[in-house]
Amino acid sequence: MTKTLAFVVYPGLTALDLVGPLQVMSALASLDPTYRVVAVGRDLDPVGTDTPLRLAPSHTFAEITAPDVLVVPGGGAPTMAALADQELLDWIRTAADTAWTVASVCTGSLLLGAAGLLEGRRATTHWGCRDLLTRFGATPVAERWVADGPVLTAAGVSAGIDMALHLVERLAGPELARTVQLFIEYDPQPPLGPIDWQSVDFPAFEPHTRRMVTDGLADHPELLARLLG
Amino acid sequence: MTKTLAFVVYPGLTALDLVGPLQVMSALASLDPTYRVVAVGRDLDPVGTDTPLRLAPSHTFAEITAPDVLVVPGGGAPTMAALADQELLDWIRTAADTAWTVASVCTGSLLLGAAGLLEGRRATTHWGCRDLLTRFGATPVAERWVADGPVLTAAGVSAGIDMALHLVERLAGPELARTVQLFIEYDPQPPLGPIDWQSVDFPAFEPHTRRMVTDGLADHPELLARLLG
Repeated sequence: MTKTLAFVVYPGLTALDLVGPLQVMSALASLDPTYRVVAVGRDLDPVGTDTPLRLAPSHTFAEITAPDVLVVPGGGAPTMAALADQELLDWIRTAADTAWTVASVCTGSLLLGAAGLLEGRRATTHWGCRDLLTRFGATPVAERWVADGPVLTAAGVSAGIDMALHLVERLAGPELARTVQLFIEYDPQPPLGPIDWQSVDFPAFEPHTRRMVTDGLADHPELLARLLG
Repeated sequence: MTKTLAFVVYPGLTALDLVGPLQVMSALASLDPTYRVVAVGRDLDPVGTDTPLRLAPSHTFAEITAPDVLVVPGGGAPTMAALADQELLDWIRTAADTAWTVASVCTGSLLLGAAGLLEGRRATTHWGCRDLLTRFGATPVAERWVADGPVLTAAGVSAGIDMALHLVERLAGPELARTVQLFIEYDPQPPLGPIDWQSVDFPAFEPHTRRMVTDGLADHPELLARLLG
């Protein structure tokens, strides 16, 4: 029985949020053909990202209705705008009904929240947006990824790779997860070492977060008030 | 004076090879508008990747002729096929003439080799293809990334992120590199730890590499012989 792993594509997303876990899952599918990976969007036209690259999905929302795993990437202002995209939220909600795991990367967790999937759950997101999770009834957690029931949320951008390897381990066991890690040569060596969280001036970034939310939700005052009010 | 950072797009590439460093460089450009990031391909149509996603460049080869930095992603059999793509190699060669740095990720270094850019240089690539570098006159090195003069080569797939952060540090200094790292929350925590290289059965993967090269170069017996003969 083929298991379908669906990645959501929408305009303006952060490219690495999507492509990190997509590469991990595609490696799994190349090793075990009982997994099928799809990139799902409103239509098959390329959408813009926060890089110069445009990305084209492989399937439409109408074609994929009951994935086994769902991964929702995040982004900046366009992701905030997507919080008001009822077609996208409806698809996520319907897919989540039957999915074994509903995952997000970065601010993709806010989309899960807007779809009503984080109520009463522990969750994470990009460090700059963690407090916004409370607006959707979630308890923010400062971890690389957080599993709460069927909901798996990752921290910002590159955290999707770690989360996806964890998901491969849960789906297919540690041996396959290690092989996937070897295939994508994921043996990270950040040239300046890990992030020194003690030295981060969090308040200095708050105006940036507010501007991102305000820019994305300029046409949606109710949702804007829910997030920043 | 704007500095142009150009990412090469060609059919069948490994998506994360491209998108990892592209995300890093796009974050740099968002912090310092004197950097411009472009994704360059033969035309603007989406090309397939080794995932279900198709990627569309922002510019054509004809539009970008003298980038300051050039990044060439790798891949599997389609990248081997690209070793015989004279239009692609010509563009890389011309761009490299004036570029400050010519970088590659994964088997993208073989494209640099086929373009004649690795002769006498230390270089790296995906662990499964390291020996192939000798066929282009390079000395293979088992490091996360290798700088030799203007040529910067990264190991497999995810190594492009580390290399790109190193490049940001060289271009713009450690403070901006740290901010980029923070923006993409690159604080890696591989769930099963780092790769245990001692336990990897390298000979077991050799047939896979040979098949990849053979599949990609079936129509190019001379190049096939150069790589595997």
